[in-house]
Amino acid sequence: MAKAITERSVDYSQWYIDIVKKAGMADNSAVRGCMVIKPHGFAIWENMRDQLDRMFKETGHVNAYFPLFIPKSFLSREAQHVEGFAKECAVITHHRLMNDPDGNGVVVDPSAKLEEELIVRPTSETIIWNTYKDWIKSYRDLPLLINQWANVVRWEMRTRLFLRTAEFLWQEGHTAHATRQEAIEETLRMQQVYATFAEEYMAMPVIQGVKTANERFAGAEDTYTIEALMQDGKALQAGTSHFLGQNFAKAFDVKFLNENNKEELVWATSWGVSTRLIGGLIMTHSDDDGLVLPPKLAPTQVVIVPIPKPKPEIGEVVEKVMRELRARGITVKYDDDTKNRPGFKFAEHELQGVPVRLGIGMRDLEKGVIEVARRDTKEKTSVLMDGVVDYVEKLLGDIQKNLFQRALDFRKERTTRVDDFDTFKEVLEEKGGFIEAHWDGTTETEKKIKELTKASIRCIPNNNEKEAGKCILTGEPSKERVIFAKAY
Amino acid sequence: MAKAITERSVDYSQWYIDIVKKAGMADNSAVRGCMVIKPHGFAIWENMRDQLDRMFKETGHVNAYFPLFIPKSFLSREAQHVEGFAKECAVITHHRLMNDPDGNGVVVDPSAKLEEELIVRPTSETIIWNTYKDWIKSYRDLPLLINQWANVVRWEMRTRLFLRTAEFLWQEGHTAHATRQEAIEETLRMQQVYATFAEEYMAMPVIQGVKTANERFAGAEDTYTIEALMQDGKALQAGTSHFLGQNFAKAFDVKFLNENNKEELVWATSWGVSTRLIGGLIMTHSDDDGLVLPPKLAPTQVVIVPIPKPKPEIGEVVEKVMRELRARGITVKYDDDTKNRPGFKFAEHELQGVPVRLGIGMRDLEKGVIEVARRDTKEKTSVLMDGVVDYVEKLLGDIQKNLFQRALDFRKERTTRVDDFDTFKEVLEEKGGFIEAHWDGTTETEKKIKELTKASIRCIPNNNEKEAGKCILTGEPSKERVIFAKAY
Repeated sequence: MAKAITERSVDYSQWYIDIVKKAGMADNSAVRGCMVIKPHGFAIWENMRDQLDRMFKETGHVNAYFPLFIPKSFLSREAQHVEGFAKECAVITHHRLMNDPDGNGVVVDPSAKLEEELIVRPTSETIIWNTYKDWIKSYRDLPLLINQWANVVRWEMRTRLFLRTAEFLWQEGHTAHATRQEAIEETLRMQQVYATFAEEYMAMPVIQGVKTANERFAGAEDTYTIEALMQDGKALQAGTSHFLGQNFAKAFDVKFLNENNKEELVWATSWGVSTRLIGGLIMTHSDDDGLVLPPKLAPTQVVIVPIPKPKPEIGEVVEKVMRELRARGITVKYDDDTKNRPGFKFAEHELQGVPVRLGIGMRDLEKGVIEVARRDTKEKTSVLMDGVVDYVEKLLGDIQKNLFQRALDFRKERTTRVDDFDTFKEVLEEKGGFIEAHWDGTTETEKKIKELTKASIRCIPNNNEKEAGKCILTGEPSKERVIFAKAY
Repeated sequence: MAKAITERSVDYSQWYIDIVKKAGMADNSAVRGCMVIKPHGFAIWENMRDQLDRMFKETGHVNAYFPLFIPKSFLSREAQHVEGFAKECAVITHHRLMNDPDGNGVVVDPSAKLEEELIVRPTSETIIWNTYKDWIKSYRDLPLLINQWANVVRWEMRTRLFLRTAEFLWQEGHTAHATRQEAIEETLRMQQVYATFAEEYMAMPVIQGVKTANERFAGAEDTYTIEALMQDGKALQAGTSHFLGQNFAKAFDVKFLNENNKEELVWATSWGVSTRLIGGLIMTHSDDDGLVLPPKLAPTQVVIVPIPKPKPEIGEVVEKVMRELRARGITVKYDDDTKNRPGFKFAEHELQGVPVRLGIGMRDLEKGVIEVARRDTKEKTSVLMDGVVDYVEKLLGDIQKNLFQRALDFRKERTTRVDDFDTFKEVLEEKGGFIEAHWDGTTETEKKIKELTKASIRCIPNNNEKEAGKCILTGEPSKERVIFAKAY
């Protein structure tokens, strides 16, 4: 039998850790807060990356690569940015080790102290805008639409595999524009790309909205977000797209000559998603038997298990089915291992989240059928051999849709309109999820509510419906509801 | 006109830098020794990575990701390894900055000193074998065939874009095996994968061989290499594959239970290629007009230029040609920019190394022809419109072959058999290239020759022909010739 997973209802956090570890997704490492992404987890990240990369390129972006290190002084150039990012970070002070004079391994060579300390990038606005200064001279150089896939480091105190780690992998887009309007359009375009990816590939419904001033990226004029709801009723910020105004252009003196030969400051955006998405994927779909993966991101979409063990007659049929599935672009594996019995294999493939499992025994062969099991609902059906490839292809599409619908239904069920603070607290504690409530628009009230309830404003939805009301805490007038939730 | 490039014959180093910078490949950054890989350079790296990644997966490997940081003490575990890698490296000593009490930006917070310093990985054997300890228990867990795409940092004193930089991108394979024989086979298999990639994709001929003890990777029992010859007659070590014996298993106590339930130490290999390959690609094929790219790695294989400017009639024909080229998997761009004249565009596309350029003017349209120019030989031909797609497809294959053959001819011409030390020095100075000479097999002689001539032993070729001779320096007996060269 596969290793048992703690049930969600017993201990949600442990359930999550069990899945991450037992399904071979990731593990803690010897370095505080840094994870090892194991092959199964990395294969999912590769699929995410490939799809996102395609979507970025289709919207006109190209990839580049900027240095891992940022000179300390760069961080101080943008006042808000330094407050947000310079605090907890990895600081490089020396560039050499030497043999310990006392013979205990190696020690830092005091003579190799750097003149200026370097920071391992927590995000790359500063080093990139320092580079853009050399690249942008004229309106002809704009827009500059660049993305980078990279590792970044933020010295987080409390870490959790995928959701919050000291080092993580991500992409960060950094674009430069001639006008405010064009930069805002880019910011919204990338929010939409993220939402499309989350919903169509991850089958994870998201709310698109804008952050309050208090929750903005350090150095942004506006931060747009996609917010998803996890099975424990907590929100996950899954991706953000920032309109940076001219803040970084000012900080790094990046100007261009416009068509009238006049100097102007450049407008900026930045946007990113990270390996945190894998945490979101797990917590959106998985169950007490393990991982549940949407077919569009599953490293293996179909697994075939011989019952009770491999035989030449079964192998022949499997070969044919695999060939036909692959011809349709479906990834399939034959689990012809002879050491383990079918029950063990079933549990293992369920743990790993393989969307469709086919079982074939000698009796099936005689009858000309194959057993088809779907991971999302655990339903099994006998399907005629002749039609199995069509059936599986359609089933993969159905599973993708079903996962999205199930998550959407869950979110609907866990979204509550609330008009007073007592109910707000009660819903938060007993039901969780998103709460649509009125707020007076001040950072003070927002902070007070968070202090009292741990709930934060996740976003003000794009195209939010206007509705007069009263702030749940202060009773002050409000023009629209915002989305509250406890969050990761 | 495109920006002029220094001629190779005038200043080879400047020629290289000019191409790297002016063709938009890379640039220096504000951080000492770290480069910015610009979009054109990165697109070539992506093509290299995609092909290599496919070849790794076809040979049974999977990707994973290990931490950027290595605890200082890990480096001391393997005695040779620490000698080779712990000396010049980026050392993280603190995890926080704070506002300067004097108001000058931010300073290191002395209270946030790490208990143990962390090193930015120069290579990942130590952190990976520390992880493998948890993953490997039994022979059933072997072989473990894992690769990682990552950035690494080596604090090099003299850096050169792509060829030697403080931070670079690479892949590092780390495999674990039950037997010595299997690990050696893996080492050689990956050397062969690298050679195939270099010759079939980069069109860069390589010699496969094994390094002398003196040139081995720190911690390896044997280092296999692929060595290429650059246009200035210097060698480039383009990829290495190491048989690590049980050194890292010993250092990190990684044992497995064999089929007889007895404990054994695990056998290891590691292998890597890096963004250095881009430097090799440039120096193998490029000329005084700019970059020359093998079609299999060119981000854009065909560019179409309207003569003298875009017109609807030309656009129609171009659309059709592009559609048909793309249907055959050929990447093509239409340069319909109206600001620059054809001459400027031609020079720009030559600088960027686009393998094939098509030119279409109104007179060509009337005659039903297209002008086809190939980048490698600069030849131009008029081709009938009807057959142009077939022609271009075949031409791309021809260019790929021609580039390889040209580089191979160059290497043959620059490979010299030498039997005495005076001739050795003379050939090195006047002709450069690879020198096949006898050597007495001692590290002492190898070092002495390097000291006197700057030439090192690049490798002892795989399946080297045995031939009795005398060492060019000491006259001591030798059983085979080895390959000498000055090297990057």
